[in-house]
Amino acid sequence: MELIERILHGDPRAAARLITMVENGTAEAVAALKAIYPHTGRGYVIGITGPPGSGKSTLTDRITAELRQLGKTVGIIAVDPTSPFTGGAILGDRIRMQRHSLDDGVFIRSMATRGHLGGLSRSTNDVVDVLDAMGKEYILIETVGVGQAEIEIVRTAHTTIVVAVPGLGDEIQAIKAGIMEIGDLFVVNKADRDGADRTVLEIEMMLEHGESDDGWRPKIFKTVAARGEGIDALTQGILGHREFLFEEEGHRRKGRERTRWVFRGLLQERLTARALDSMSRGGGLDPLVDRIAARETDPYTAVEEVLRKLGL
Amino acid sequence: MELIERILHGDPRAAARLITMVENGTAEAVAALKAIYPHTGRGYVIGITGPPGSGKSTLTDRITAELRQLGKTVGIIAVDPTSPFTGGAILGDRIRMQRHSLDDGVFIRSMATRGHLGGLSRSTNDVVDVLDAMGKEYILIETVGVGQAEIEIVRTAHTTIVVAVPGLGDEIQAIKAGIMEIGDLFVVNKADRDGADRTVLEIEMMLEHGESDDGWRPKIFKTVAARGEGIDALTQGILGHREFLFEEEGHRRKGRERTRWVFRGLLQERLTARALDSMSRGGGLDPLVDRIAARETDPYTAVEEVLRKLGL
Repeated sequence: MELIERILHGDPRAAARLITMVENGTAEAVAALKAIYPHTGRGYVIGITGPPGSGKSTLTDRITAELRQLGKTVGIIAVDPTSPFTGGAILGDRIRMQRHSLDDGVFIRSMATRGHLGGLSRSTNDVVDVLDAMGKEYILIETVGVGQAEIEIVRTAHTTIVVAVPGLGDEIQAIKAGIMEIGDLFVVNKADRDGADRTVLEIEMMLEHGESDDGWRPKIFKTVAARGEGIDALTQGILGHREFLFEEEGHRRKGRERTRWVFRGLLQERLTARALDSMSRGGGLDPLVDRIAARETDPYTAVEEVLRKLGL
Repeated sequence: MELIERILHGDPRAAARLITMVENGTAEAVAALKAIYPHTGRGYVIGITGPPGSGKSTLTDRITAELRQLGKTVGIIAVDPTSPFTGGAILGDRIRMQRHSLDDGVFIRSMATRGHLGGLSRSTNDVVDVLDAMGKEYILIETVGVGQAEIEIVRTAHTTIVVAVPGLGDEIQAIKAGIMEIGDLFVVNKADRDGADRTVLEIEMMLEHGESDDGWRPKIFKTVAARGEGIDALTQGILGHREFLFEEEGHRRKGRERTRWVFRGLLQERLTARALDSMSRGGGLDPLVDRIAARETDPYTAVEEVLRKLGL
C-alpha cells in the first residue's frame, strides 16, 4: 500500500489521512494499522493530565520545544473534551501550538472525546501507533484528568505527568486525587501564584502514603509554562525517568501493560460486535430489550440466554 | 430471600448491604438484582451534571428538600470522582447531606469512580435498580460532567440537568460543552455572581443550534443553591419535564433507551469474561500479549484468532 510506505517515511499528510480513517472506523483503517504494526514500539509515550485550567496545553507546547532543541522528533495527541461548541481558551491553545506546525519534526493531532467508534481510548491508541510508525521519537498525549477512558490513556504511557496548580479550589483539586497514584512526575504549574509551595507540600505528603511498584520515586517540578520557566528541569526529569525505565527493562514492562490493555479492549469490542451481528437474525437487540423493559425478564438472565445461544 | 423482602419494604440497611455486594461484584449480588428486577421501573431518574465547583451537591440537597416537602421519597447517588485522598470541600458536601440522613424518605449513597468490577456505569445502574425497588419515587444521580461513563450515566436519566456557573473560566466552561446537548434543563447556579445573565445568554444561543428529537424545548433556570434561591422553580421545571414525558409516553421511551444501554454494557462485559475464561486453558492472555508485544502479530489479527477459536 502506498499510504503505508508514505507513513513509514514520516509523511504527515499520509498519517493524517490514516488517522481520519481510524476515527471513522473503516475497514481500510484496520488493514493499514495491521500493516504498520511491525514498525511500532520505538516511540516513547508521555501522558500529560491534570484539571482544566492547569495549563496542560502550554506545558505540552513548551516540552515539545525543549525536545526539539535536543533534536528529538515529537508527536502530540490532544484529547479534547469539547464538542463543536468549543470556547475561546481552547482555540487559543490550538493557535499557540501552530508555531510547531511549520516544523517537520512535530506532528499534532486533536481528538474529540465523542463519536469514536469503539471508544476514545482505542482510537487514541491507534493514533499513537500511527505516530510511532511515522518515526516520532516522543509521543505526547495531553488530556483532562477525569473519566475512566481518559485516565487509562495516560496510565498506559511510559511516563505519566500529573499537572496541578496552586489555588484552583478544593473541589477541583479533588478531581486530580483519583489520578495522583498514576503520576511518575508531578508538575505544579503557574508556580508564581500564591500557594505554590503549599501545593508542592500537599503532593509530597500524599506521595509519602503511596508506593511505586517498580522502585521509582515520583518527582515534583515547579513551572510557569506561560513564561517557559522550569521547563528545562521538567524535560530533564522526563529523560531521567526514561533512563530509569530503560535500565530496569521497565519500558518493556510498560509497553507490555499497554499491549494487554489495548488487546483486551479490542477483544471486548469485537466480541460484542459479533454477538450483536449474530443476534440480528433473531431481530437483533429489540425483542430482548422489549422483554426486559416489560420486566418479563431481567438484563442478567437475558445476557445468559444470549451467551448460551452463542455456545459460550 | 429475606434480604429481597426487606429491600422491597424499603429497609435502608438491606439496600446498603446489597449495594456493597454490587460494588464487590459478588454472585449473590446478581441473584438479588434478578430477584428485585420485576419490582423496578417505577422510580423517576434525574441526572445532575456539571463542572467541578458548580455546586451540584448543594443543588441535589436542595432539590431533595423540595421533593420531600411535596411528600415524595428520594434516593441520591453521588458518583464521586475522588480517591481516598479526598479534600475538604467534598467532605463538607457529604456532611451537609447528612441532614437528610435522619429522614426515612431519603436514601443517600456515594460511589467512587474507580475499582468497580464491570465498570462504573453498570454499578451505578444496579444501584438505581436497588433504590427503585426500595420504592424511592425520585432517584437523583449527581456526577461531574466529564468522561464517557459519567456522561452515559446522566444521559440515560429521565430528566438530565446540566449545571453551569458564571465566570468559571473559558476552559472549564468548555468541558461542559460536550454535555450541553444532553440537557433537558439547564441551571446557572451561583447566579448572584457577576456574569450570570451572560452565561444564561450563552446557553440560550447554544440551544438555538440544537434541536430536541422529542419536541421538548430545554429550559434555563437561575439558582443560588447555597441560599435556596430558585429551587422551587427548578423543582417545578423537573416536574414539568416529567409531565411532558408522561404525556407523550416519553418516559417509556427513555426507560427503554436505558434498558438497551444497560443490556449492551452487560453483554459486552460477560462476553469478555467468558472469552478470557475459555482462553485460560491455553495460558490466558499472556502468550498472545507476548506475541503482540514482540510484534510477531498485531492486536487486530490476534483478536480475530480468538474469535475464530470461539466459533464466532
